[in-house]
Amino acid sequence: MELATQALGGNRYALARLISLVEDDGAEARAALTALYPRTGQAHIVGVTGAPGTGKSTLVNQLAQSLRERDQTVGIVAVDPSSPFTGGAMLGDRVRMRDLAGDPGVFIRSMATRGNLGGLARATRDVVKVLDAVGFAVVLVETVGAGQSEVEIARTAHTTVVVEAPGLGDEMQALKAGLMEIADVLVVNKADRPGAANTARALEMVLDRSAPRPNLSSGDGETRQLWEPPILQTVALDGSGVPQVLDAVAAHREHLRASGLWSELERERVREELLSLLQQELLRRTVARVGEEQVQAWTAQIAARQVDVYTAVHEILGE
Amino acid sequence: MELATQALGGNRYALARLISLVEDDGAEARAALTALYPRTGQAHIVGVTGAPGTGKSTLVNQLAQSLRERDQTVGIVAVDPSSPFTGGAMLGDRVRMRDLAGDPGVFIRSMATRGNLGGLARATRDVVKVLDAVGFAVVLVETVGAGQSEVEIARTAHTTVVVEAPGLGDEMQALKAGLMEIADVLVVNKADRPGAANTARALEMVLDRSAPRPNLSSGDGETRQLWEPPILQTVALDGSGVPQVLDAVAAHREHLRASGLWSELERERVREELLSLLQQELLRRTVARVGEEQVQAWTAQIAARQVDVYTAVHEILGE
Repeated sequence: MELATQALGGNRYALARLISLVEDDGAEARAALTALYPRTGQAHIVGVTGAPGTGKSTLVNQLAQSLRERDQTVGIVAVDPSSPFTGGAMLGDRVRMRDLAGDPGVFIRSMATRGNLGGLARATRDVVKVLDAVGFAVVLVETVGAGQSEVEIARTAHTTVVVEAPGLGDEMQALKAGLMEIADVLVVNKADRPGAANTARALEMVLDRSAPRPNLSSGDGETRQLWEPPILQTVALDGSGVPQVLDAVAAHREHLRASGLWSELERERVREELLSLLQQELLRRTVARVGEEQVQAWTAQIAARQVDVYTAVHEILGE
Repeated sequence: MELATQALGGNRYALARLISLVEDDGAEARAALTALYPRTGQAHIVGVTGAPGTGKSTLVNQLAQSLRERDQTVGIVAVDPSSPFTGGAMLGDRVRMRDLAGDPGVFIRSMATRGNLGGLARATRDVVKVLDAVGFAVVLVETVGAGQSEVEIARTAHTTVVVEAPGLGDEMQALKAGLMEIADVLVVNKADRPGAANTARALEMVLDRSAPRPNLSSGDGETRQLWEPPILQTVALDGSGVPQVLDAVAAHREHLRASGLWSELERERVREELLSLLQQELLRRTVARVGEEQVQAWTAQIAARQVDVYTAVHEILGE
């Protein structure tokens, strides 16, 4: 609690320690999160995602600098690919972010990916909450592109920026189509390279402007003003086009607020978080009740094909 | 059950229907899995993973053709990026696999990614079990590269092939290092392009040959013969180098068998599956007990910052 109070008071060392605690979970971290939680809900949480090679780390860096020029404070949570075995985070592109070091209006955190998916999603959500609570106006959450991890961000972020780049090859097409549906703002980075206009046109074609996006239609058939994801071009290396991306991100926030989607998305996010934590806690209690030895005995029987896993689950829980 | 019997008898239509059932889950699917489970454990499950643009779909296609030339039957499970909202699978590169169509020794399945990660992992595991049970000698599981999804494969597969390609840019380095630790066989595809030898050398440097890999050390300090992931070069478009990849995959299988790791990995895989299913079933029962209305009421309170999610979980479950 001491730590939470110090972090709220602007002590960066306390903030860093608190975030480490929260990443690792545990009773102290949960008490701090409970204390901080009423102060959350103010930050605009922006996911930045895209495939490797699109330059999205550089873009995140530039977005942060532009936000600072607009006098907005910014937290960056970089979710890095890393080993499930060592739990260590890769530094990699974070080095590029040195320009931002020393600015008290910026806080950068590189997340280690923990052994399981639930763990990383939980840790990312909680670290974002801490940054929100201590008052960062915008929290940028950067993840490596591809598949399911984007879905998780889309659920944490209010606004998702999907970054593309020209000439990443045929195999990108499927990926693009997958990312397309979670994109609120599309960015073609490296727009000084040949093919940028083609990439933008291809994105325009994949975006079916005529179809309503599922997350924008309300349950009761009421028609809402739809958000049409803009397609913007940037050269993150020199900052070209970056202010326009920020303008689009801000416009999306206004759209969410005006349409009532902001609180709808909030409820969805909360529901998922609640169910996910319930699940983890239920498992913890059940394993404690059944006992590690029994879990091992069931595991051995399943591995020996004496029983299948579905039957085992039902027997463990009592049919 | 009828369906399971027909699928075991070689009826491909029944197999396809059974797999669809299993993907969708439900009582009938679980009964079929229970019936089929004793027949599993024979197939060599091989994960093929790598970042977009590495040509891994083409490589999977070639691996399947080479396996057929060696008279081995092969199942392919392609886990595609796709929408969390529509649940539909992208076809994309699957089109390239038409060469294999009509061969009864090959079965290709493109998985839709379901709304949540647990769901996709569960469905993939169960589809692999079905292909194993009906007798496919090798099951190739292809996923898009990056981050956590690779970890999930590494846990399902006996052998993980990580595919790289020359010239995918700086940002790949972090990704490579992340994938490195789950690679049993490394492939530099598109080896006819400039830079292939450099890529291979870079991989060689990232692989620290001197350090024992965590998944190869046994708990009791006993020293085992270590597996050194070979680095191979292929041109999947014309099939060059593909037989050497299959040789390495087969050698890894022999290594697992000889070292006792095969059954150790099996137990780890079973344990994770058991715990994951326990968790899902516990949540299902708890939501049914608490009631949907109560879940919504808690969600509203958390969204309104009247209570934080950890406190809510403890109150729902009774402290």
